[in-house]
Amino acid sequence: MQRLNSTADDFEAKFARIVDDRRESDAGVARDVQEILAEVRRDGDNTLRNLTMRFDKYALTDDPETWSIGKDRCAAAFEALSDEARGALELAASRIRAYHGGQMPKDRDFRDDANVRLGAKWFPVEAAGLYVPGGRAAYPSSLLMNAIPAKVAGVERLVVCTPTPNGEVNDMVLAAAHLCEIEEIWRVGGAHAVGAMAYGTEKFRPVDVITGPGNAWVAEAKRQLYGVVGIDMVAGPSEILVISDNKSDPDWVAADLLSQAEHDPTSQSILITDDAVFAEMVEDAVDVLCAQLSTKETARKSWDDHGVLIVVEDLLRDAPPLANRLAAEHIELMVDEPDTFFTKIRHAGSAFLGRHTPEAIGDYVAGPNHVLPTGRRARFASGLSVLDFMKRTSFLEADADALAAIGPAAAILADIEGLPAHAASVKVRLK
Amino acid sequence: MQRLNSTADDFEAKFARIVDDRRESDAGVARDVQEILAEVRRDGDNTLRNLTMRFDKYALTDDPETWSIGKDRCAAAFEALSDEARGALELAASRIRAYHGGQMPKDRDFRDDANVRLGAKWFPVEAAGLYVPGGRAAYPSSLLMNAIPAKVAGVERLVVCTPTPNGEVNDMVLAAAHLCEIEEIWRVGGAHAVGAMAYGTEKFRPVDVITGPGNAWVAEAKRQLYGVVGIDMVAGPSEILVISDNKSDPDWVAADLLSQAEHDPTSQSILITDDAVFAEMVEDAVDVLCAQLSTKETARKSWDDHGVLIVVEDLLRDAPPLANRLAAEHIELMVDEPDTFFTKIRHAGSAFLGRHTPEAIGDYVAGPNHVLPTGRRARFASGLSVLDFMKRTSFLEADADALAAIGPAAAILADIEGLPAHAASVKVRLK
Repeated sequence: MQRLNSTADDFEAKFARIVDDRRESDAGVARDVQEILAEVRRDGDNTLRNLTMRFDKYALTDDPETWSIGKDRCAAAFEALSDEARGALELAASRIRAYHGGQMPKDRDFRDDANVRLGAKWFPVEAAGLYVPGGRAAYPSSLLMNAIPAKVAGVERLVVCTPTPNGEVNDMVLAAAHLCEIEEIWRVGGAHAVGAMAYGTEKFRPVDVITGPGNAWVAEAKRQLYGVVGIDMVAGPSEILVISDNKSDPDWVAADLLSQAEHDPTSQSILITDDAVFAEMVEDAVDVLCAQLSTKETARKSWDDHGVLIVVEDLLRDAPPLANRLAAEHIELMVDEPDTFFTKIRHAGSAFLGRHTPEAIGDYVAGPNHVLPTGRRARFASGLSVLDFMKRTSFLEADADALAAIGPAAAILADIEGLPAHAASVKVRLK
Repeated sequence: MQRLNSTADDFEAKFARIVDDRRESDAGVARDVQEILAEVRRDGDNTLRNLTMRFDKYALTDDPETWSIGKDRCAAAFEALSDEARGALELAASRIRAYHGGQMPKDRDFRDDANVRLGAKWFPVEAAGLYVPGGRAAYPSSLLMNAIPAKVAGVERLVVCTPTPNGEVNDMVLAAAHLCEIEEIWRVGGAHAVGAMAYGTEKFRPVDVITGPGNAWVAEAKRQLYGVVGIDMVAGPSEILVISDNKSDPDWVAADLLSQAEHDPTSQSILITDDAVFAEMVEDAVDVLCAQLSTKETARKSWDDHGVLIVVEDLLRDAPPLANRLAAEHIELMVDEPDTFFTKIRHAGSAFLGRHTPEAIGDYVAGPNHVLPTGRRARFASGLSVLDFMKRTSFLEADADALAAIGPAAAILADIEGLPAHAASVKVRLK
């Protein structure tokens, strides 16, 4: 864990190093993935069979039942939930649905001064593939966060791919799949699953968009297939930036910092405060709480390797510019008047205002998406939304008079650009 | 050129081959680009100097003037335009600006039933890099189509990179740059220019988003840098699909088909009609017009290699499903009641309704963007818009009561997912 003071001589150098440190390494991964994708393309289901045996020790046989998980099994998993768990999942689903419903874009259709009809129509894609990691990162909340925007957008066919190492499935994920009305669940994971959804195989009908979290191989496969399909943003390790004055409870701040740290050793938690004593109190609280966590090993390593405590002179003056350079996935504003700070924040995936808004409620039940840009990508990228599952067709319509009004300018520009058929297509109609 | 008849036995096989033929080849390009980008990252301006000499035979020296083109020179190019050219450019710019102004997304800020404040704020990215090809594909219209949405979005810094082979610049492009108030124009092209804009060098401050057309190396560089920066969709060869009954003038249809064909030998022009005699008339008209074009060599090759005439039985019944499988960049509906057809079209980049709406007016002056998804990507991608230069920060705010209402469900789900610090960050506040 690093302690920085904004008045120190070496602050800028140290802070710049934190901003530049992507905590991502892809040595070798790109080549591996390239080979896997080429193999899936060439050899389809056979490749899936081989790689699933190699990586998951799970046999995909001639029995179709070994390849996928049926809707009955998902329904049973849902029925088997405790009332508490089912209630929590349903509350989350209904709030996520409501928030994303407000994202639906509006079509346009109007005539302008030249009597040209102009507009744009939005459509959902036909099919979306959702990757759900296996093992400990198999989160039902991720399934909700990926599937619900697709459903709200109107996507007809939702396909899930998830590895089942040694044949083990995660019942909470199946329950969430039931709640989201997923049609197909395939017991295939890794880069090859992403390739199968993008290219299609004998068994897989290809999809149009692939989203969902995964390890470095999955993320790289999505990156390489960008353009063959649509994808959500390239995702890296999680981050949280907490901006807090000294009136917050250090235990609250510590829990929030650790809630990112426990995700992965490469996660990053940063506190910016204007009180060095408060920073120390948070540091102590982190140590105390961390020791009690079942995730302490991961959380400790993340905090030790990537945690940062930054003390500045004037919180409102100094913290927002630093926050904008960090462009964090999550930013908490634990101050009395969070809006005063928020109006100065331009680059962040999602913002959590005030002391009673822990980032974790955004992960599960608040409504906005928890799939957010990481690794400073909030400079140019947004969280997952219904727009990731939709696309727009622009359109125009002119009659003879409208074409007479704007056509000649098009013909002039076409001639200038040396494109005579473009010009001819206008001129022939103006005769 | 292929002639297909939808009632023929081999129609489905032949049509499927057309749908699957991406007309894109990237053998070797990916590796070359990987090396160039690594070199730019390692050796910055020095690499730009070497590669610009190698590819463009142009010397970037110690004189900063050799690196960029000043605003004075752009202003002079604009002043030197004929009244006709200036008027056409200004009409195009103002119409593009007006159409894209209507794309600005709205912020959200509301309280829901649980008294949780929720919302989303949109911001422009800070800097965008626009690639402008050199030589014969240096189109002022492309500069307008890329720069104006960025300006409308509110992007502060617009950077253009364009190769100037043998030092030659395109005055029309400079005039368009003046009109778009471009701040920086660099005389660097190719994959290395894209790398310089993404990573930054000694001379280049990095940008957040890179858009604009380019050759296979430029397109591949953008693809590889996706995630380091935002990019517009991967672009391939242009396409037009014309759906026409036999009441259209064959000369009009021929001009429209050739207006795509003249772009590049890999462009594709397809006609679907319900009258075999009409199809032959169009074929003859293509031959006649093509012979008159200064671009005849390119247009001929494109038409011979990739042109398709499809005759169907029932235009309204048969054409839209085929169109949706082709998911063409441009679709023209040259029929009496184009809306009847348009309501059946789900996958297309841009639609041109009626007989008086040649695609070329969309290329220049109509207003919607001419940067559109190619290679069947309209299944999942949209044309360039202000959204490509903006991003969204979601936000939420809870007070103690609101957290008490939705927090317990979050804690339950966090516990189920084995993330105790997530649960603790809620529970500690509910005490």
